[in-house]
Amino acid sequence: MTSSEINNFDTRLLKIALNIARRGIGLTGPNPSVGCVITYGQTIIGRGCTSINGRPHAEIVAMEQAKRHYLYQTSEKKEKINVYTTLEPCAHDDTTPSCAKELIKFGADRVIFLLKDPDERTQGKGANILKSAGIDCINAKIFKEEMLDIVGGYLKRKKENKPFVSLKIASSINGKIGTIKGESKWISGDLSRKKVQLIRSNHDAILVGKKTVLRDNPRLNLREEYQNIPQKFVFILDANLSIPYSKKLKIIKFNQKEKIYVFTKKNCDKAKINQIRKLGLNPIQIGKKKGKLDISEILLKIGSLGINKLLVEGGSSIWTSFIKEAFFDEIIIFWGNNILNGTAMPTFNDFLPVNTRIKTFPRLKLKYIKNWVDDIEAVWQPTTQET
Amino acid sequence: MTSSEINNFDTRLLKIALNIARRGIGLTGPNPSVGCVITYGQTIIGRGCTSINGRPHAEIVAMEQAKRHYLYQTSEKKEKINVYTTLEPCAHDDTTPSCAKELIKFGADRVIFLLKDPDERTQGKGANILKSAGIDCINAKIFKEEMLDIVGGYLKRKKENKPFVSLKIASSINGKIGTIKGESKWISGDLSRKKVQLIRSNHDAILVGKKTVLRDNPRLNLREEYQNIPQKFVFILDANLSIPYSKKLKIIKFNQKEKIYVFTKKNCDKAKINQIRKLGLNPIQIGKKKGKLDISEILLKIGSLGINKLLVEGGSSIWTSFIKEAFFDEIIIFWGNNILNGTAMPTFNDFLPVNTRIKTFPRLKLKYIKNWVDDIEAVWQPTTQET
Repeated sequence: MTSSEINNFDTRLLKIALNIARRGIGLTGPNPSVGCVITYGQTIIGRGCTSINGRPHAEIVAMEQAKRHYLYQTSEKKEKINVYTTLEPCAHDDTTPSCAKELIKFGADRVIFLLKDPDERTQGKGANILKSAGIDCINAKIFKEEMLDIVGGYLKRKKENKPFVSLKIASSINGKIGTIKGESKWISGDLSRKKVQLIRSNHDAILVGKKTVLRDNPRLNLREEYQNIPQKFVFILDANLSIPYSKKLKIIKFNQKEKIYVFTKKNCDKAKINQIRKLGLNPIQIGKKKGKLDISEILLKIGSLGINKLLVEGGSSIWTSFIKEAFFDEIIIFWGNNILNGTAMPTFNDFLPVNTRIKTFPRLKLKYIKNWVDDIEAVWQPTTQET
Repeated sequence: MTSSEINNFDTRLLKIALNIARRGIGLTGPNPSVGCVITYGQTIIGRGCTSINGRPHAEIVAMEQAKRHYLYQTSEKKEKINVYTTLEPCAHDDTTPSCAKELIKFGADRVIFLLKDPDERTQGKGANILKSAGIDCINAKIFKEEMLDIVGGYLKRKKENKPFVSLKIASSINGKIGTIKGESKWISGDLSRKKVQLIRSNHDAILVGKKTVLRDNPRLNLREEYQNIPQKFVFILDANLSIPYSKKLKIIKFNQKEKIYVFTKKNCDKAKINQIRKLGLNPIQIGKKKGKLDISEILLKIGSLGINKLLVEGGSSIWTSFIKEAFFDEIIIFWGNNILNGTAMPTFNDFLPVNTRIKTFPRLKLKYIKNWVDDIEAVWQPTTQET
């Protein structure tokens, strides 16, 4: 966890940069949330987090602040200017010059970051630009687990062109997500549902199946203290377009239409497709695999839209499809404090042959556990996670 | 939480007595586990816990130890002798004189206890005997919750003639206790199963249904570090005597036969009943209620055997019967770190009509939560617990 080139002060400042990066989780898509701190000697003169929707970058925000600081403006420079940033500064000029070039102009003496940017336009080039300009540029390579929590989705998308996938489930103690009639309000308590708002805000998009829409007519928007943050993308899986799309549908009523995508099979009824378009939503036709919409193709499409983290909110059939092909990076389960009938709605359907032995079923790693009054929240990850 | 008659030193000593009482949980049946500390002024001169199988009582054990202490043996008595005991000293002479009488002979100056003994032979009489002898006897009435954890089973049996009932369940994350073929080894991990041994040791008896015996042929004994503690009572529910009782059955092989009881319906096949008796087990014939063995009658019978705490180890049908009539005081659930098919064995069967609304299903209170590596243990209690 230590580098020979960085000292304890550096480590502390990188930790501050990490905490700043945490502020932007779920808000900076398609870019990762980055945190940056600039010091003049041991005095912090600038801080920045990647802005909403990704630009300006954290370094630019921090430099803007630092430029207004009297220590930066002083004519006689006595101390070094250190820049601590969680991700390698970018190398590519876009609407604005690259962060690497801006840092040179700014007069940075040292630049310390935690992780090489996997974006092909940077990938070490940012560090090289800085080094070529004589700046002491260090990849500290520490806080890897913390970084995974903050930019895991971005890293996965850069590597596999697919988003990080979280399955979010609310079930009774005995694994039931609703009564046999489909009633599910409310299995989990007030605080759990408040936590779900926070979880939604940490993701870039929400995905649901047609049965959930037909049964629950959910809003899927961000509410209360989260209502002012940018709208999440919403994906609906509806192979045969069996949802009656209209302005009455709560998903349409409570979300920006251009951010709603409907995945449907190829050769779908054209009139229905047109109706969806007319409502302002985006229909996308997807191939099938073993009779069901091809989840892999869907995830590639979602990745191509710049979605880093996808929250799959159900229901059973959808979660089962994701489990079946191991297309998930996290299962977030809320157990409400109730028990339901044995024939009530199950969390998952069958995903392996019925005669499969116990040892063959997937084992998960418990990452987090917390109770919300009488409910329990647990986060599980696949045991062979490759992200 | 404070009494006007006791000081901080007394409270601290009562806490020590409580911790001593904890040592005997599950070992002292049919008696409750009691802890006792005796001081000469501020010096502890004796400690005692109720002995295995209930006798001698904690006070007797503590007095025996104190009598050997040099401060007790000193000719010139300068300090008061204080006795701190978790339960009111008993008033009834049995094979030995009552604790109250022994404490008078011993020369106690003050006796402080936490809870009046609900046993009809004591119920305040113990305190009265002490007071009549001029001893300062105080019911501190504090640490009620802690006492409930230690003697809750005893209190329930004294009040309702039925034991405190814990349902112990091991399920997958999605609420399945075995595959559709009945395989359940192992859903939970090593540490969870070790904890189950501790839970068994804290109960006086274990109850299982016939299906569990037929499918798993479980040992139900105490193993490893618990193997030397007294054998627990084992109750099997087998209305039609469908288990082939023989010496090969692991329950019979690994447990004292005289502590095994088989609950069966009335008018059962006499030859089968005789065979059970010949094996050394105890058959008990029970009436039916709505086509199933009457659980209330079974619990009264178990209570009459002096069982304070009963651990119901399953399976689904048995747990469902207990849930249906709200005959449980605690649900102890272990979630293993796996997920199983939707058609695998459920935790509970239906216990309310299928059209029951969510709000009508029982809500539970989360009492305890802990993870064992990747498993989760949670303890739930009914929200309107009357124990």
